Parts: sequence; structure tokens; C-alpha cells
Amino acid sequence: PPQLIALVYVLGILLGTAALHLPGVQAPGADLSSVDLLFTATSALCITGLVVADTAEAFTRQGQLILLLLFQIGGLGIIAFGTLFAVLAGRRVNFTERQHLAEQLNALNVGSVLSLLRIIFLYTLVAEAVGAGLLALRFVPDFGWREGLYQAAYHSVSAYNNAGFVVLPRGMGPYAEDPLVCGVIAVQIILGGLGFLVQLNVLTHLLRPRRNRLLTYSKLTLLTTAGLLVLGFVLLLALEWGNARTFGAFSEPGRVLAAFFQSVVPRSGGFSTVDMERLTNGSLFVMTALMFVGANSGSTGGGIKTSTFAILLGSAWNLISGRTELIAFKRRIPTSTVVRAGTVTTIYTLLVGSAFFALVVSNPQLGFTHLLFETVSAAATVGLSMNTTPKLNDAGLIILTVLMYLGRIGPVTFALALNQRQVKRGVIKYPAEPDILVG
Amino acid sequence: PPQLIALVYVLGILLGTAALHLPGVQAPGADLSSVDLLFTATSALCITGLVVADTAEAFTRQGQLILLLLFQIGGLGIIAFGTLFAVLAGRRVNFTERQHLAEQLNALNVGSVLSLLRIIFLYTLVAEAVGAGLLALRFVPDFGWREGLYQAAYHSVSAYNNAGFVVLPRGMGPYAEDPLVCGVIAVQIILGGLGFLVQLNVLTHLLRPRRNRLLTYSKLTLLTTAGLLVLGFVLLLALEWGNARTFGAFSEPGRVLAAFFQSVVPRSGGFSTVDMERLTNGSLFVMTALMFVGANSGSTGGGIKTSTFAILLGSAWNLISGRTELIAFKRRIPTSTVVRAGTVTTIYTLLVGSAFFALVVSNPQLGFTHLLFETVSAAATVGLSMNTTPKLNDAGLIILTVLMYLGRIGPVTFALALNQRQVKRGVIKYPAEPDILVG
Ligand SMILES: [K+]
Ligand SMILES: [K+]
Repeated sequence: PPQLIALVYVLGILLGTAALHLPGVQAPGADLSSVDLLFTATSALCITGLVVADTAEAFTRQGQLILLLLFQIGGLGIIAFGTLFAVLAGRRVNFTERQHLAEQLNALNVGSVLSLLRIIFLYTLVAEAVGAGLLALRFVPDFGWREGLYQAAYHSVSAYNNAGFVVLPRGMGPYAEDPLVCGVIAVQIILGGLGFLVQLNVLTHLLRPRRNRLLTYSKLTLLTTAGLLVLGFVLLLALEWGNARTFGAFSEPGRVLAAFFQSVVPRSGGFSTVDMERLTNGSLFVMTALMFVGANSGSTGGGIKTSTFAILLGSAWNLISGRTELIAFKRRIPTSTVVRAGTVTTIYTLLVGSAFFALVVSNPQLGFTHLLFETVSAAATVGLSMNTTPKLNDAGLIILTVLMYLGRIGPVTFALALNQRQVKRGVIKYPAEPDILVG
Repeated sequence: PPQLIALVYVLGILLGTAALHLPGVQAPGADLSSVDLLFTATSALCITGLVVADTAEAFTRQGQLILLLLFQIGGLGIIAFGTLFAVLAGRRVNFTERQHLAEQLNALNVGSVLSLLRIIFLYTLVAEAVGAGLLALRFVPDFGWREGLYQAAYHSVSAYNNAGFVVLPRGMGPYAEDPLVCGVIAVQIILGGLGFLVQLNVLTHLLRPRRNRLLTYSKLTLLTTAGLLVLGFVLLLALEWGNARTFGAFSEPGRVLAAFFQSVVPRSGGFSTVDMERLTNGSLFVMTALMFVGANSGSTGGGIKTSTFAILLGSAWNLISGRTELIAFKRRIPTSTVVRAGTVTTIYTLLVGSAFFALVVSNPQLGFTHLLFETVSAAATVGLSMNTTPKLNDAGLIILTVLMYLGRIGPVTFALALNQRQVKRGVIKYPAEPDILVG
């Protein structure tokens, strides 16, 4: 299956690019090149949300609908593949964790693969319909029935899939102080970033607490997500409160709302109600760090993942406090999981670092900060932008295209795709070497 | 012992700061504040080399000698403590790796602690004297006997201890194309960065190959050091070849020499023959990454350490190629070492990240790139500078002072200092939780 995902996404990107080349897709006056369209199709299918030009201006209604189709398919695909992968891979050797997860998924009464897929599709549809209905309460008065419903549906799908595409005529800015629009979109992004398994687990647990226990994975990721939200909220509020170019322009409740919304979007929503370029350097650091961490495994979000981050923090604390076992919610995290968390982070960092280096060299006209922000945003498929993407040359766009693809397919999936053979066990047994000093 | 190191260094810094307050230390016209002097003393004792003002201009001969004393003590201290720690800690529980290392050190015929210390002092003295002699070949003709010998001795001590303090009247710039000066200093830096254990191991191995086997640790760090040098050399040469503000101003052999020298100094020499501020963004990324990795454990260098980096790379490659065991030079690296490498890197990254964030918030007038470069340089006790330190406010200087101290004491030593009690084993046994998805 891993190779299948990798291949399906390449085909999807090519098909999407071809579709965007159709006549009537680009708005009059827009003149996007083939590289631009490849980038846009990748951004949509990989539910990243980075754009070379404002989507509302550059694409006709048809073009916007092609993008909607791409990110709806991309989002559903990631949810379905991610969940199936967690279930199916359990049958293979060497993945006891997945096996256990599969057992527990069965305990959630999901039954066969087909019924699981049906539940996913249905669930997504319901979540998007509810979101659209709520957004319509604002957009229909603002734009009239036809356009208002279109805008409501478009942004509900875009938000729940963490796609980050915006087709509002004046962007998200005018809704920065609107609790309805910001609230609905933020909730959609958080739910999408938790992933289907956690949502399902929480729902079934709430319905029948005794029969369906809350998975340790759910507890861990819910707590980490909440912690990151609070941290981001507090820091952004403090750093931007007096910045007249961002929150400072809002009423005091508006600043609180903006801080909340901006703390949600790095995991990996990609919407923003203030111009990222106007943030203070401190906030840019916070946003970049939050994007790097990202959302849950198997969700529509990216990054190294909340669970990975929590395990890294936990083992750091263990080393400092002299503990040897990593305990979370009265469960011991196996060493193999700790190693995997570290390794995933290493691969991810190398990937982001290499892409950033390539961008810096190929686009010397652009600054470090801008390029780093855009690189992390692409790798974690966030889609927040310091308005750098439109300024990149073709080499830069292609680097980001590859990065969005790799960031979406995921370091682990990518690693497994490279390795369809069974896990290699060394034939020769070497003696242990305990003499390596580190740090 | 870990708490002792931490305490001794604090005392040393305070004493050094007091000494720099003596009359006749600052050159006429220099007007360094107490915070400046605290920073300078810390930079010297922690053999970092960051400065708030040009050392040759701001300090009299007496002041320069106080700094020399500080970084000579700091360097010797780190070498002695680092080696002793590796030997002594072996006697405690839970550090089988150190125990083995201690055994092998005994196999190196070092004998008692006192004779080990005597060897370290003697060895350092000889290495510095040889370096000084070679540098005198250039500096005596340039400056006359008295001043030339002073300059030769000063920079030999500064280089071997990876201190990075320069008291040449016009800095290192005029020697950018001088193979003698650059070569001697580069070799001193590389030797210092390898650390005493590796040098001793290689020497005794070369003298008696059969009796003294080359430790796996030595092989691993020598290979990694060589790899990083070659990588840095090639990238810097390519990126700066045509930069008229740096290498482009030199002859072609001069450019090769400059690329070599600049690839050596990030581990953690701190000398540079070109202005870091004039490097292309690509080279700045390369330098920052090399500084972050740093040199060997227990050496005068800093960073996450070459062995840590090699183990991270190895386990990343393992995950991609589907191997489960990490093999280096026909030895299996235990999982506990892999976990420790990941954890050390996490702690180090959190430390650098927090300090960088604090600097960005407290010094908003300075750019991201400049502050990141200076932060990594301070944490890895490198001392390379984009000329940002003199522009920092007092809050910024104090942040960097703390960072230089923590970077020198080392994440692991610091962690052990926090934890004088025995390694805690959980009293309650929790069941394993294999359900945590990461990445
Ligand atoms: K996104
Ligand atoms: K240094």
C-alpha cells in the first residue's frame, strides 16, 4: 500500500495539472505558467494551500471547483489511507503497535474495511455540511443566496480538510473579528487535525464510556493539541497585542479571537486573518515552530506530529530527571517507539533543511526568514505564507512542489514505500559497542 | 562531579569578571560595562570567542593575558573534566559504556588519575608550543621578535583550545591566503575538536597497532569529522567562489585555502578569515548547520557532537532501508545509545530554540538570520559572529552569557548535575502501550 499511495498521488497531481490547463479555468488576465499550475495542483491535492496567486482572482468558478475537487479527494484520501494503513498494516509483522490499534478499531465496532470507508465518507460529509450550514449564516447575508452558499460550502470543505484555499473576494481579513466564521473554521481545522481515529474514539467513548475506552493515543494527542493551542494563544496574544499592523488594529475581544485563530491555523489549516508578513519576529518564530510540530498522525495535518513531539519532550524530561522508562497515562511507551519518534524527526529535519538550503541557493534575492517560513509551511502542508511563493522562480516552485508532495506522503510512508521488502535482520551478528559517547 | 563542574565554572566566571574590572585592563578609550565584562569573561572561560568589542582594541596587554589565562584554564578544564568524567563515571551504575571506556583507557596504559592529568597537561603544552613555534615563523617577521612571539603564542593557545580570541591588530583577514597561518590554526582546531581521548587513542594505536586497537568511537568520530570537513569545503567553495565580497577577492589557490579554513572553524574554532556578514545566505546556512553539529564529546568543541550526528543519520538511514540494528564498524550500537543521541539533540534544540526566541523578542531591532547565527554560535561555543553581539542590548548579552555557559557545561553534564540521585526506576510497573503512532 505505501507505494500505491505514492503513485496515486503522483497520478492525481498530473491529472489535476492537466485539468487546470483546460480553457476557461484561469480568470481573464491571469497568466499562470505550467509550473505555476503544477504547483497549484500539488498544493490542492496535498491539501497544503500555498498559492502562486490569489485563488479568487486567478481562477474562474470552474477553476476553483477543480481545486475543491482536488483537495476534497486529497483530504479524503489521506484520511482513508491513513486509517486503513493503521488497520491493515497491523496484519504484517513487525508492527505490533498497528496490530493492537487494529484490534481496538475492531473494538470500536467498525467491522470490515468497506464499512470503515463508508463511515469515513459519511462522517466527513456530515462534518462539512454542518460547517457549511453555520458559515452560510454569515456568508448568505454578505453575498446573497447563490454566492453565499458557494462561499460557505467552499470554505467548510477547505477548512475540514485543512486545505487552506480561500476564494473570498477580499480574503479572510474582513472576518478577523467575526467569532462565527473564525470559530467554525477553527473547529473544523482542529477536528481535521485530530484525525478520524481520534474523533471516532472520542465519540464512541462519549456514547458508551464503559465499552469503549479512550485510547492512550487519543489522550496523548488531545493533551498535546490542547497544550500547543494554549501555548500558541498566550504567546501570540502577548507578542501581537500592541502591534498596530496586526492585532493592535482590532478591538480587545477581537485581539483575543485573532490570537486564538492564529494559534489554530499552524496545525495545518493554512487560513490566516492577519498578514503573516506583518507579524513580529517573535510571532514568526512561534508560528514556524507550531507548523513544524503540526497535527496528528493519519490526520489531514502535517509536521512531525503531536505524538512525536510529546514523546521527544517526555524523553528529554526523562534524561534530565534521571528516569529510564517513559510513562504516559500509566502506560509504558516502548523504546522502539521512542527511537522511531527521534528518527522521524531527524528525517523530517533533514528534508526541511535540504529543501530550505536548495531554496536559499536558488532564490538568493529572497530573505532567510521568508524562505524558512515558506519551507516549513510547505513541508508540514500548512499553507500559511509570508507572500513569498509568488516571488519564487521556477526552480523554487519545483522545490516546494516536491516538498509538499513528500511532506504529504509522510516520512514514514515514504520510508516504507522505499522498502517493500520485509524488515532486514542482519545476517551477521555483531558484538554490541557500548563506548559511543554522545552529547 | 557534574555539580562540581557547574559550580567551578560559575566561580571562574565571577573571578574572571572581577579580574577584568581591575584598572589597566581596558585600553584607553574603551568603555565596557559590567555586563560587557561578564559576557567577555564567560566567553573566554567557556572558550566561546564571541566578543562585544575587538579584543585587540578594547583590552590592554594585561587584559588580553587575563583572557588568555581564562581560556587556557577553561580549555584544560574541559579536557581534564571531560576525560576524567569518562573514566570515573564508569564506576557508577547505569553507565556501562563509560565503564568500558574506562577499561580501554586503562588499556592505553594511562594508569592513575593523577598520571592521566599530568599527561593531559604535558600534551596540551607540547601541542601549543609546536603551534606557537610554527606561527612565529610568520608573526616574528611581521611584528618583530617581542610582539611576534606574543602573537604566535597567543593564537596557538587560542586555536588549540578552540577559544577563537584574536588579538592581531588587523584581525585574521590579512592572513586569509597564508597557508602557514591558516594551516597551523586549522590543524590546532581540528585536534582540539577531536578531543584528548581520540588523539591519545590514535597516537598509541599508531605507535603499537597490535596492542592498542582503534576504538570504535575514534573511528566513528574521525570519519564523521572528515565527512563534515569535505562537505563544508565543497559547499563553501561552490557558494563563495564568485562572491566578490568574500572568496572572490582572493587568488584561486587562496579561495581553496579560504574554503578549507572556513569549513574547519565551525567545529568550534571561531576564527574566520572572511567577514561572516558578507557570506551568501547559502553559506550562512552551511556554517550554522556545521556549528550546530559541532565537534567531539569531551573535546574543546561544542554542538550536539559528531557521534550524536552520525548516530542520528545512521538510524534515519536504518528506518528508510528497513533495518532494525544500527551497525558501525562491525559493532552494534545499543538502542539506549540511539535514544540518548535523540534526546540530547532534543534538549539541545529546545535550549537553542528558547534562547533564540528570547533574543528575537528582546532585540526586535536585529534580524532573524543574524540572531540565529549568533545563538547557534554561542550555544555550540564556536564564537563565529555576524557582528551582532556588539549590537545586542544588555538583556541579549545576558541571554547569550547563560547560553554560552549551558552550551559549555553541556546538556548531558547539566542533566546529570540536576540529578545527583540514583537513576529512578518506577516503583509501579505499567503495562506497555504499543499504540502510539508517530510521524
Ligand atoms: K493546509
Ligand atoms: K570557540
